[in-house]
This record gives sequence, C-alpha cells and structure tokens, in this order.
Amino acid sequence: MQDSFTQKKQSILKEISANGPENLDASPKGTIDEHCIPIINLINSHRDMVTTSSCSGRVSVYLEGTQSKLVSKGNEGKWIFVTHDTTNLAKWYNTIDFQYVHEYPASSYEARSILYKFEALILHVKCRDQATANKLYSVAMNCGFRESGIGSNYNVAIRTSIKLDVPIGYLGPDNTYRCFVTEDYLNYITNVSFDRFKENFKKLDQLHDAIEKGIINLDDESSADAVQNDSKHKSLKEWESIEERRARMKQEGLRRKEELKKAKETVTSD
Amino acid sequence: MQDSFTQKKQSILKEISANGPENLDASPKGTIDEHCIPIINLINSHRDMVTTSSCSGRVSVYLEGTQSKLVSKGNEGKWIFVTHDTTNLAKWYNTIDFQYVHEYPASSYEARSILYKFEALILHVKCRDQATANKLYSVAMNCGFRESGIGSNYNVAIRTSIKLDVPIGYLGPDNTYRCFVTEDYLNYITNVSFDRFKENFKKLDQLHDAIEKGIINLDDESSADAVQNDSKHKSLKEWESIEERRARMKQEGLRRKEELKKAKETVTSD
Repeated sequence: MQDSFTQKKQSILKEISANGPENLDASPKGTIDEHCIPIINLINSHRDMVTTSSCSGRVSVYLEGTQSKLVSKGNEGKWIFVTHDTTNLAKWYNTIDFQYVHEYPASSYEARSILYKFEALILHVKCRDQATANKLYSVAMNCGFRESGIGSNYNVAIRTSIKLDVPIGYLGPDNTYRCFVTEDYLNYITNVSFDRFKENFKKLDQLHDAIEKGIINLDDESSADAVQNDSKHKSLKEWESIEERRARMKQEGLRRKEELKKAKETVTSD
Repeated sequence: MQDSFTQKKQSILKEISANGPENLDASPKGTIDEHCIPIINLINSHRDMVTTSSCSGRVSVYLEGTQSKLVSKGNEGKWIFVTHDTTNLAKWYNTIDFQYVHEYPASSYEARSILYKFEALILHVKCRDQATANKLYSVAMNCGFRESGIGSNYNVAIRTSIKLDVPIGYLGPDNTYRCFVTEDYLNYITNVSFDRFKENFKKLDQLHDAIEKGIINLDDESSADAVQNDSKHKSLKEWESIEERRARMKQEGLRRKEELKKAKETVTSD
C-alpha cells in the first residue's frame, strides 16, 4: 500500500500530465505555462514534493467586479487581456477597444476600475513533511522570494514582490472601456513589464538551480544507496523536456480526436 | 528560569514599550504605527505569541536605487513621501517638487523610476510552537489575508494582496523628479488609496476580532483555571490603550529631556 502523500502525488502528476489544450485545468489560462515546466518537473522528481499550482508570471488587464472593488475573482470581474510571456505583449493595447478620456471617477467605488498588473512567478508545492517544507522555504527565501511562506499541511507558497498594479481606466456607463492614461504611458508600463519579465525569468532560473543544488542533488547523494533499487522513486524522477512534452501532448491530442471521431461514427451508424 | 521563548518575548516587549519619537526602531518610520497598537497588544497578551514587526499600511512614493531597478532598500533607493494614514494624504503631490513632462525613458533600466505604492497591513508574529503558528495562520487566512505564511522558527507573516504599484516618473539627468502622469491622475490614485486604506483598516479590525475570538478568548477559557494564579501570564495580559501609551511616552520623553538637560549642565559646569 502507498502512503497517503504518494497517493495524492500520483493523482496530481496524472492530472498534470493529462493537462493540455484539450484538457484544461481550473486556472484562467487552463494550461500549465511552458516556462514552469522545467521547475515543475524538477520539484516533482523529488519523492517528498509535488507542485499543486503554478504561474510563471503574467501581465493582465483586469476589469474589477461589481461588488467588492478590490480585485477578486467572481462577482463579474473579468480579464480583458492576459499574457504569460513577452511574445504578444508589445502594443497589446491596440487589441482592446479603449476610449481615451480625461475624466476620472471620484473614487474606485464609483465605477469598475480597469487595472494593469504584472504578477511574478508563484508556485505552490505540497511537501510530505515539515522538514521538507522548511528546506524548500529556506531555499526560496535565500533566492530572494521574500514573500514565501508555509501554509497548512506543509504547502509551501513561493512568491516574490516583483509587481505592477496600475489603475488605467474604468468601465463607462455605456459599457465602454475608458482609459484615462495615454497610449505613451501604456507603452511605458509595457516596457517596464518586459524588464520585470526578464528579472522574473532570471529569478525562476535561479530558483530552479538552487532547488536542484540545495535539495535534489543533496538528497540524491544522501539517499543514493537506499533508493538505488526503488523503481517507484526512479519513475518519479523521469521527467520530460518541453519538446518531449509537446510531442506527447500532440500525440495524445491526435489520439483523442481519433477516438472522438470513432465514437461519433458509432453514434451515427446506430 | 524562563524558557527561551518567554525570554525573547520579554526582550521584544521591552523594546516595543521603549519605542517612541525619541527612541526609534530600524523601520523607515522609526516608530510603531498607532493603528497597529491594539492588535499588537492583543497578540502580545497571549503567552505563546509576540509581534516582531508591523506596518499598518502605507502610501509611499519611492525613488528606485541605482543598481537593481527592482524596488529594494539600500543602493540609494529613497522614499520621497510616506504616510501611514489618511490625514496628510490629500494633495501630497503639491509638497513634492515635480516637473510634469511628456517624456518617458525607453525602459526602467534607463532611468531611476519613481513609484507610487499602496501597501496594506503586514504583521510578523513569532509563535512559541507549530500549533500556535498554525492557529494564527488559519485565522489570518480565513480573514482574507490570503498571502500569509509561516516562515522558519514559527514566525507567521500576515499579508493581504491589497496594493497599488504605479510608475509615475523618473529621476531626470539634472536630478529633478520628472512626473509623466498628470496631476489629475495623481489625484485619482490618491482617491483610490483612500478607498484602499478604508478596506485595509476594516480588514485590520476583522483580524483583531478574529484573533480575539478564535485564539485569545478560547485559550483563556480553556486555560483559565490553570493560569489563574500565574502572575507572569497576567502581567503579559496587561495592555495599554492608545491614550495610555501616549501619556506614558510623553512622560518618558519629558523625563529623558530632563536627564539630558541635567547631563549637559554637568558637562558645562565641569
């Protein structure tokens, strides 16, 4: 019988490995960010850790909900634009139907705000025990992820304070997106976001290397003899590269399409 | 002999009680925010918790340092304006020698950015043991302090995501503060900050009540018999109101002035 952590871990790994464009998860984007895959695989290669959620960092433009004016999901809050990397970030505002105005609501309670946000990498990792959680927490803090913390059940949240949170407009009475900053200003904060992404990915790499050096390799050395013949451990250590993952997802997508086609044919011929 | 937690706690309480305009701590402001005093006293009334740092929330305007362009203390980063409440927030920008411009640096690396920030309540609490840390963490999370976490040595950080982080200008080559948003925009984000402060203090009150109800009162009930004659516990429970604290600080300030005067007279008469 497997212990409950290993059971939980295997069920999470199964979900992660099935996740893809045709099998979305509960996040707004629905799929795992490619930038996170190496660190997810690294962490999951350790028998005492499993990633439960991740965001590699993103720029988003958010229309606040109707009730609480503070950003929260639900109550009709809405993402107007989201990107997890820099490829479609330049001139993003040309894709939104903004009405540039010089009027401001009297307060953030008077109209639904539109906020431009940069959010850095965030990773949640479930650990088997307190010792593992403490180790991961220390490694993250030493890498400059100063807003990290351990939650209940040995869940570690890895967070930095790299951010932007800029009110840029509001929802007009006619449901138009009114923007009270200039295009030049939007262009500037977009440029700042490119810099933030750069810092963010640098920190992501540093974290990857620190976890590898400070946890994975050390634990490998100290338990090398004990687990040499432990095939369960070995199978958790086999991780895919981004290319391997892409190829597998493609194969699995094709297979699902094929199955769907067959199923439809069966229904039709009934 | 006292245990090490109680020793540490008493030394922290001594520092807190001595802190005031004439005895600054290491924070930029140097003194404890008045808004934090009730919750600090409440938490410190529990024998297994002690507050190690606090900020009740603040608006700041920060000139980034010279090296890393990401906000960090040191490397000549500088606060241009800071307030911990709403009394001197309105029209704060009239007190700064801003040059309003329509030019932008090409990136945040090219010139030192000026950022307008709203930061919410943050509280650090050292707990005696894991059970107490877990309890405090849960209470905070349930109150909506969703970025809370437990660090090493049972230190709990209580944090929310209420924030603003807005680039508003940069340091000109002639060392002028160049502002590339309009006064109207500064006025708007100031109004938004008034709303954020309101939410922030509401959440601070909720947290105070939840800690009182979920930890202090419960533990009081369950250990009432055991500690009835425990004078050490009792002395930790005696807390000052804001008014009492003000009166005491004033008295102590006067006493120190008097001592200084006497010391000077002694030097002069030597």
